[in-house]
Amino acid sequence: MTNKTNNKTGTLYGLGVGPGDPELLTLKALRILRTVPVLVYPAPVEGESMARAIAAEHLPGGQAEIAIRMPLDAARFPAEEIYAAAAGEIAEHLRSGHDVAVLCEGDPFFYGSFMYLFARLTGEHEIKIVPGVSSPMACAAALHAPLAARDDVLSILPAPLDEKVLWERLKTCDAAAIVKVGRHISKVRRVLVDLDLETRARYIERASLAAERIIPLSEADDPAPYFSMILVHRRGEAWA
Amino acid sequence: MTNKTNNKTGTLYGLGVGPGDPELLTLKALRILRTVPVLVYPAPVEGESMARAIAAEHLPGGQAEIAIRMPLDAARFPAEEIYAAAAGEIAEHLRSGHDVAVLCEGDPFFYGSFMYLFARLTGEHEIKIVPGVSSPMACAAALHAPLAARDDVLSILPAPLDEKVLWERLKTCDAAAIVKVGRHISKVRRVLVDLDLETRARYIERASLAAERIIPLSEADDPAPYFSMILVHRRGEAWA
Repeated sequence: MTNKTNNKTGTLYGLGVGPGDPELLTLKALRILRTVPVLVYPAPVEGESMARAIAAEHLPGGQAEIAIRMPLDAARFPAEEIYAAAAGEIAEHLRSGHDVAVLCEGDPFFYGSFMYLFARLTGEHEIKIVPGVSSPMACAAALHAPLAARDDVLSILPAPLDEKVLWERLKTCDAAAIVKVGRHISKVRRVLVDLDLETRARYIERASLAAERIIPLSEADDPAPYFSMILVHRRGEAWA
Repeated sequence: MTNKTNNKTGTLYGLGVGPGDPELLTLKALRILRTVPVLVYPAPVEGESMARAIAAEHLPGGQAEIAIRMPLDAARFPAEEIYAAAAGEIAEHLRSGHDVAVLCEGDPFFYGSFMYLFARLTGEHEIKIVPGVSSPMACAAALHAPLAARDDVLSILPAPLDEKVLWERLKTCDAAAIVKVGRHISKVRRVLVDLDLETRARYIERASLAAERIIPLSEADDPAPYFSMILVHRRGEAWA
């Protein structure tokens, strides 16, 4: 709480901590991470926060910490209320002059929950976003599979989309990164097989982590783990 | 040339150095950057390499450097020959046991020219890719404009695409990052106006650099600078 006594209000940082490997943090994220008095991170209702785990080895200790515990099945729970309560707690720190960093897996603005805090706090508070290495780039690196080249259209496709929508999208794009695979893996496999794209698809779990696993898509578990992704390129290789 | 005398062959690193701010380098890229004996980077025929400029303040000095000088109008020049020559020079270093790092603006596998070296050297040499912060994420951070949320389809659209193709793509996606804007800005503006998406579009130049500039799309120069981007979200805000 180093800046509690001055009159300045605090700055809120949306801090991308990258895809999992703590060495994929940026120098900027590291500097802010080490110096802010208050850290905030998403976490499951029970157990460890992935974002905090990525940052853990870099933390000097002595910082206040706020875990935003969000049930996985948010439909059954009041996500709105959880974000509102967290935004309120963050706003109090900012008004007291404390800088606050929200740790975000990957990048804060690429399908990240940070934007729901941002939406509630922008306008009233100074906010700075620190971009991070995103999961499609980490997966491409690990798979040795370039995402896109030249004038390729690259589509990021969430696997929960309807089978028909996925089919239409995959039929027309040059390249795709299919995210949030999890329990949708059978549906995605069906679509890829139907479009004759299965041999163009690469599957990876937990890219950049020690538990990273690259296996043929046909051998992936159903459901797939939360941190899994499928990359597809129509030409097989982006450079072809 | 620290490892010249052993028998091990060298490792080739594709090193993402991020979008421009030297502080957006990852810790991993920094470690490798400082320790490899040979650095390679793309550069214009005359003048400074952007990738090297990003890395410059971190370089310890004393490393061998190879600039791959590529004419902007590669259609009129033998790009194939330039990459083949560079790959040959890199392969010689690797065979001599020298590690080599190719500095890549943004991420090596996101529309990066590194993949043309990768294609020529994979299989024969050990290659490791270090993902970097990409320009869409850096632009979103600077614009305070989240890219995509929930089950949004996010499309990366190169502006050189035909007007009709851009129109079709922009009509059907939830969100888009339009890259390589440059001399295609009038065409892109026409499409956005026609689709009633102009008020949903945000324009930025040189994100994360000191010269970063955020202006209304209608006020952007024609041609736009090489490092410019347009982000669009159909809902206006990704969280809406």
